[in-house]
Amino acid sequence: MVTNSVDNQQLFLGIDGGGSKCKAIIVDQTGVILGTGVGGPANPFHGVEQATTSIVESALLALADANFPVDNLSELVVGMGLAGVNLPSLFQQMEQWQHPFKKLFLTTDLHIACLGAHQGNDGAIMITGTGSCGYRSVNGEAKMVGAHGFPHGDKGSGAWFGLQAVSKVLMSLDGIGQPSLMNQMMLKHLNCDNDLALVELIANKPAGFFAQLAFIVFDAADKQDQTAINILHVGITYLANIARSLQLTPTIRMSLIGGLTPKVLPWLAPEVQGWLEPPISPPEMGAVIYAKQQIET
Amino acid sequence: MVTNSVDNQQLFLGIDGGGSKCKAIIVDQTGVILGTGVGGPANPFHGVEQATTSIVESALLALADANFPVDNLSELVVGMGLAGVNLPSLFQQMEQWQHPFKKLFLTTDLHIACLGAHQGNDGAIMITGTGSCGYRSVNGEAKMVGAHGFPHGDKGSGAWFGLQAVSKVLMSLDGIGQPSLMNQMMLKHLNCDNDLALVELIANKPAGFFAQLAFIVFDAADKQDQTAINILHVGITYLANIARSLQLTPTIRMSLIGGLTPKVLPWLAPEVQGWLEPPISPPEMGAVIYAKQQIET
Repeated sequence: MVTNSVDNQQLFLGIDGGGSKCKAIIVDQTGVILGTGVGGPANPFHGVEQATTSIVESALLALADANFPVDNLSELVVGMGLAGVNLPSLFQQMEQWQHPFKKLFLTTDLHIACLGAHQGNDGAIMITGTGSCGYRSVNGEAKMVGAHGFPHGDKGSGAWFGLQAVSKVLMSLDGIGQPSLMNQMMLKHLNCDNDLALVELIANKPAGFFAQLAFIVFDAADKQDQTAINILHVGITYLANIARSLQLTPTIRMSLIGGLTPKVLPWLAPEVQGWLEPPISPPEMGAVIYAKQQIET
Repeated sequence: MVTNSVDNQQLFLGIDGGGSKCKAIIVDQTGVILGTGVGGPANPFHGVEQATTSIVESALLALADANFPVDNLSELVVGMGLAGVNLPSLFQQMEQWQHPFKKLFLTTDLHIACLGAHQGNDGAIMITGTGSCGYRSVNGEAKMVGAHGFPHGDKGSGAWFGLQAVSKVLMSLDGIGQPSLMNQMMLKHLNCDNDLALVELIANKPAGFFAQLAFIVFDAADKQDQTAINILHVGITYLANIARSLQLTPTIRMSLIGGLTPKVLPWLAPEVQGWLEPPISPPEMGAVIYAKQQIET
């Protein structure tokens, strides 16, 4: 038994598993946070075994943080949102996991982010971090927009902004395309002398690399660079279109989350900005909310 | 000695090394082709050892094809154009190769393609295959445009057209973006039931995969699909701008080469079409021309 729980109440574990890390949170029935832990990557798309290892790792860290013994894993009711399990084959693989918990309720990272943002109530979220997408949950019906991946999708995300910047900078350095403040900003940031060095450095880089170049677009746009402004216009319009495709009449609560939120927010159309409210809780708390909803049904 | 050469004349080996294969050709001093061979991938960007292995392999096959003994490798004067060696670090690595030939003259795949297309005379080429770029050689001075790589560059290439098509199809299936004939064409071609299956299939695919989808853009554009026509417009405009940035007054000879040439040609502006003439010889013959030029200087 979980020893320091008040009158043997059930404890919940919330898991938010993404491509770079896995967050765990232990919460009692009244919503009090007892412990947290962070483990390694947990997107099963990059390996189911890696994901399950990271999930258990983060859970054990959260147990330790809450001063619970390790064998209490088997007494936890778990809500878990994972990146990647919107793909049916990965959802099935993770469902077949012989997990060490009392109960495990699996859903997508988008679902728990939405539940957390709106404290379990109906609403929608847009995410702009390394990737981008939108998600709505209303009356138990979910709708997902985007989340197509890099390099062909995820407009308005960090990776997409960085990719567009690299593309325009290389064309501009070639003399095809307009001069841009981004050219020197990017060469300097990446410590490149010329376009050939840039081409060599950029080759075969993943989404995360390009996401770290997104700030160049925003900085150059702030200085009225037209090429940067044009890129921003395309990306922000896409995010606004996601918002419009998720919004309903009467309007539902909507939040913008992800690492690029502060950069993107001021560029969004006033109509869309008017819909946005801050997320109430983080995704791992949304995972707890999901577990509680499932156990009650 | 090379036994069946007329009065002990020097024989030349031309090498055209790319990312998927390495072509070799053995030619006598008068330009008569004595033998040919095809080896494995020879772009040193994907491994210097693999490249040198493929080069020797193709050379031995060409020797065998010409009924020469294997030890004649050491009597050949070699012209070699390789993809990837426009990057200085790779050029240096390949220059340091302890090769088995009498002499080896190394240059880029673009240079030998240009020499071949114009039989060693001044001129320019544009390439649109899996990737895209432009190259000009006039009065011994070279200019390269593009060749930035996938996914951030190489507009107007097969990989770029395929990537754009996937991006637009996924947005359209999401209800963001216009309906397009390409949606069903792509789902059918890739044997996908829906957008989620398409997202799963597309994930982490290399440039070559996207290049095989380029035909969908051209086929849909032929049927007046506006989304496809818009993609074509952007890609073709880039290729036309490459042509304009390479053309001089008075005009120089210019050729369009690469697997996508027949698809792209009819869409180019009449001004650009008017500049284009068929390539005279293939790149491996351009490599021989390069060796002859070098040995004479």
